[in-house]
Amino acid sequence: MKKIDFYFDFASPNAYLSHKVMQKIKERYDVELNYIPVLLGGIFKATNNKPPMEQFFGVLNKNEYQGIEMERFVQRHDLNLFKMNPHFPVISLQIIRGAVAADMDGYLEDYIDKVLIHMWEEPKKMDDPEVIKSAFDESGFDSEKLMNQMQDPEVKAKLISNTEQAVERGVFGIPTFFIDDQIYFGKDTIWMIEEILES
Amino acid sequence: MKKIDFYFDFASPNAYLSHKVMQKIKERYDVELNYIPVLLGGIFKATNNKPPMEQFFGVLNKNEYQGIEMERFVQRHDLNLFKMNPHFPVISLQIIRGAVAADMDGYLEDYIDKVLIHMWEEPKKMDDPEVIKSAFDESGFDSEKLMNQMQDPEVKAKLISNTEQAVERGVFGIPTFFIDDQIYFGKDTIWMIEEILES
Repeated sequence: MKKIDFYFDFASPNAYLSHKVMQKIKERYDVELNYIPVLLGGIFKATNNKPPMEQFFGVLNKNEYQGIEMERFVQRHDLNLFKMNPHFPVISLQIIRGAVAADMDGYLEDYIDKVLIHMWEEPKKMDDPEVIKSAFDESGFDSEKLMNQMQDPEVKAKLISNTEQAVERGVFGIPTFFIDDQIYFGKDTIWMIEEILES
Repeated sequence: MKKIDFYFDFASPNAYLSHKVMQKIKERYDVELNYIPVLLGGIFKATNNKPPMEQFFGVLNKNEYQGIEMERFVQRHDLNLFKMNPHFPVISLQIIRGAVAADMDGYLEDYIDKVLIHMWEEPKKMDDPEVIKSAFDESGFDSEKLMNQMQDPEVKAKLISNTEQAVERGVFGIPTFFIDDQIYFGKDTIWMIEEILES
């Protein structure tokens, strides 16, 4: 049974798109998905990287092409529930801390699945504490507990160490996957991962 | 029979790598490859884009990853004759003008095939006129004629118009492919083109 480390944050549409496809892959292959919550903003700071929209700001044709690529990916994988978040960019710090807490409490994948809905299917301003809390309630999570856990020094420290370790391992953005200790960056490498699982 | 427009310059290792793979694809499918010589530097200037090494200069992990990706591509497609050009970046202006001339004279694909050897198999300083001329001789081209054609206003104008039209069509780098009027950028989209040809 293969294991895939999946470095994850909610901040990018690619988080949603790749999660959905990786879940389908999980259904089809004998594979363990090991989600590792990291702070994309922290990775950018540590590596001096930038979000693509900023990196390629003012570059003619490039952002248009990335839109075409995203649409192509959506079509290919039938992800027609995807909606761009009108509040983009949403600061993911609090909800990714929530992911660390959910990981500690053993329901990380369920948490990711539900919070992604609030980010990229029925998009909300998920960096506003009141919006976050009511989204948690709507998803049936213990919102009071989660809101407290987000301020827990242990949770904060764990997110920082996840993020630092990711950068040490070669990560510069999300999604990043490791399979057989090989790094694959971006949703557009998922077909290679599938090929490895197929063989 | 499908037709693929292949916007091409010699300046990037990806030119070599994608040419080699597209030639294999041409052998396997009923497809017409329409190489269109463009000046990568001109595209960068017109779109405000930069070479990846410059775009991601100082970004931790990113260039290392691009090295891994390149190596992975080389392995996958058995392109073990590939060698990084020690004179990189080589200004491609003269040899891509030569491509325009070769196109006018009906031997563009042969020209590309041979000049790529001088760039990325037995790499030379292919922006030095003397080096270029002796490389042409070595490849059996009419070097005198080609050296003159490179200064021909008609050739220069054709390269400019190819480049401008590419940018108008959505190009921001090379290799860029169009199939069924859909744009595909980069060697890492070739698998999608193959999928289209397969279907």
